[in-house]
Amino acid sequence: MTTPAHTEAGHPAVTLAQALIRCPSVTPDDGGALALLAERLAHAGFVVEQVTFSEAGTPDIANLYARYGTAEPVFVFAGHTDVVPPGDISRWRHDPFAAVIEDGKLFGRGACDMKGGVAAMVTAAIDFVAAHPQFNGSIAFLLTGDEEGPAVNGTVKLLEWAKARGEVFSHCLLGEPTNPSALGDMVKIGRRGSLTGRLTVRGKQGHVGYPHLADNPVPALLRILQSLIAPGLDAGSDFFDASNLEVTTVDIGNPATNVIPGEARATFNIRFNDLWAPQTLRDEIGRRVAEAAGEARYTLTFDPTNAVSFLTAPGPFVDLVAGVIAGRTGHTPRLSTTGGTSDARFIQASCPVVEFGPVGTTMHQVDEYVSIADLIALTAIYRDIIDAYFAAGSQAS
Amino acid sequence: MTTPAHTEAGHPAVTLAQALIRCPSVTPDDGGALALLAERLAHAGFVVEQVTFSEAGTPDIANLYARYGTAEPVFVFAGHTDVVPPGDISRWRHDPFAAVIEDGKLFGRGACDMKGGVAAMVTAAIDFVAAHPQFNGSIAFLLTGDEEGPAVNGTVKLLEWAKARGEVFSHCLLGEPTNPSALGDMVKIGRRGSLTGRLTVRGKQGHVGYPHLADNPVPALLRILQSLIAPGLDAGSDFFDASNLEVTTVDIGNPATNVIPGEARATFNIRFNDLWAPQTLRDEIGRRVAEAAGEARYTLTFDPTNAVSFLTAPGPFVDLVAGVIAGRTGHTPRLSTTGGTSDARFIQASCPVVEFGPVGTTMHQVDEYVSIADLIALTAIYRDIIDAYFAAGSQAS
Repeated sequence: MTTPAHTEAGHPAVTLAQALIRCPSVTPDDGGALALLAERLAHAGFVVEQVTFSEAGTPDIANLYARYGTAEPVFVFAGHTDVVPPGDISRWRHDPFAAVIEDGKLFGRGACDMKGGVAAMVTAAIDFVAAHPQFNGSIAFLLTGDEEGPAVNGTVKLLEWAKARGEVFSHCLLGEPTNPSALGDMVKIGRRGSLTGRLTVRGKQGHVGYPHLADNPVPALLRILQSLIAPGLDAGSDFFDASNLEVTTVDIGNPATNVIPGEARATFNIRFNDLWAPQTLRDEIGRRVAEAAGEARYTLTFDPTNAVSFLTAPGPFVDLVAGVIAGRTGHTPRLSTTGGTSDARFIQASCPVVEFGPVGTTMHQVDEYVSIADLIALTAIYRDIIDAYFAAGSQAS
Repeated sequence: MTTPAHTEAGHPAVTLAQALIRCPSVTPDDGGALALLAERLAHAGFVVEQVTFSEAGTPDIANLYARYGTAEPVFVFAGHTDVVPPGDISRWRHDPFAAVIEDGKLFGRGACDMKGGVAAMVTAAIDFVAAHPQFNGSIAFLLTGDEEGPAVNGTVKLLEWAKARGEVFSHCLLGEPTNPSALGDMVKIGRRGSLTGRLTVRGKQGHVGYPHLADNPVPALLRILQSLIAPGLDAGSDFFDASNLEVTTVDIGNPATNVIPGEARATFNIRFNDLWAPQTLRDEIGRRVAEAAGEARYTLTFDPTNAVSFLTAPGPFVDLVAGVIAGRTGHTPRLSTTGGTSDARFIQASCPVVEFGPVGTTMHQVDEYVSIADLIALTAIYRDIIDAYFAAGSQAS
């Protein structure tokens, strides 16, 4: 089976995606995107709450929570309407906020990341509740405007706000672009965690002609960074690749070739799997640095992080999602934990979460687009998933 | 024996040093310093030539050549009248160009590096030719205004200019501040060479979440720099310490902790002894880098350099100088090849050269000074050296 060749621009998910792209919602601006969704969802019978979160030093962010039904299980669609900046607009084939359709593709900033996915899930849910107004359970939406920014006033606070109201979630589907090349390639069932470390090695500045009067921090820095790179942190686990450390920058900034520098700095980032928690990883890194440093004076700090690794282990819920995708696309999706972080790392504390959305090849790039055929097929997949979920009742866990 | 306690401010070397300090001769400015010396030397019977050298992209520089006598041997005093900038003048105890004497010290920029040495050698030479107007030989002066700057329009061109005139030099004494703590500590009989290398390792930029799509240049950079640091280049030679390599900077400049950098750069400087020529050293470094780089793409370049290592091997001339110093100060000076580079690296191609001058502890610093007692003792040492040199005739070689 292959994806049916839907190309009609009049499909409701396509017109909704176009309307969303035309809202210039570069983080932290909302551009009217959430109000548009609030209106559509309220009209379909959802109870809609628009909540703005603030924190000193960060911009205010608009977020949206909507729910249809009061019973459990509660199936949650999650997503974001904010987008990254378009960059140099003159390099785009079409205005990035014009939502032009050409050759079966809808172009625009956010087309695949992730206004396309949001349009598909909202269209599927409205379609479902229209067909089954009395279904046994609830559908909720967690939509944020702070996924591409600091992620401080977005999903984290929206989840806290929902918890304070007594909201309990059963399962969540996040519509991030997960497919490397064709719709159906990949479902993400977990994500690696992320930890950033910053190292400063201090020596003593001096003249290269008198090295005994100075103390070059570079040899200790090289030893320490080598000890972080090898040996590897682990060999991977059942559903995860090996954890990976990358040195992202090394900086001394000494322009004088006859001067031994007094200080050297490096930053590294680790994407870690479910064999580690942030603290066990910080301990391991701290141990390696101390051992390699020897007598050298250094400071090691870690950026605050809530990017823990997580896994929604294969089971009925993952099987349900993967089965629908295989039925609609003809591809049995890979169950992956690769790639960067997403808001799923916050949601997983509330309920099992998997991610499936459009093909992501053009995300964050010039001429970002989503295939019209994929957008329509994705809407059908989301619709099938909630059909199957509520047919199965709370058995999917 | 200890240095006699001369503290009288009226000593001719002291008044000359004061007059020179009052000429604000921060490179490339001359501030009237060389005209002052030209007048003194001409009055004493020297034939004086003031020559200005130019080169595109560098400032014009005034230099001075003077000679008394026409016979061989030709004893050369060498030095410079330019000084490094005073920095923040408010941090100085006295105006750096006021040449204030306080507590037996003459304060001012250039006091020890090296207007004190120049004043001592000029005073000693004038005194000698007044006492021995018909001595069997010649005394010459090579005085430049470009030692602290690019050193392009200074000693190098003055030596070429002298050679073109048919001048031949027998031995040279350079009056740089050579003593670490007390007058008589150290004579420099050679200098290490200096070579600067610049390394760029190129990888491929990418997202830390997708390391297989990127190529981090840092691991190759670490391997290469490690291979340069160890094993050492040599174990030293008869009169030289081991050659030494210092990594002076490493720079990537990547502020994004989720981005693998595409390029990493490092600079290193080597102070090398007489076991190496610049080309043999470049070859060795190139071999190590190529081996450590493996498959990594890199560029290795070396800055142009004329800082070769050299040695004036111990023998009658070195013995004469060291013997006079021991007799005047009570210290048998160490024969050293340590420290930075000096104009002696250029002069050594024309004749054997040794360096002896004031105590250098305050050179290039705030409150630079020379001890009045040392300045008077240094003048006596210079005078004794030429006395002994011309008493020995051309035997000193």
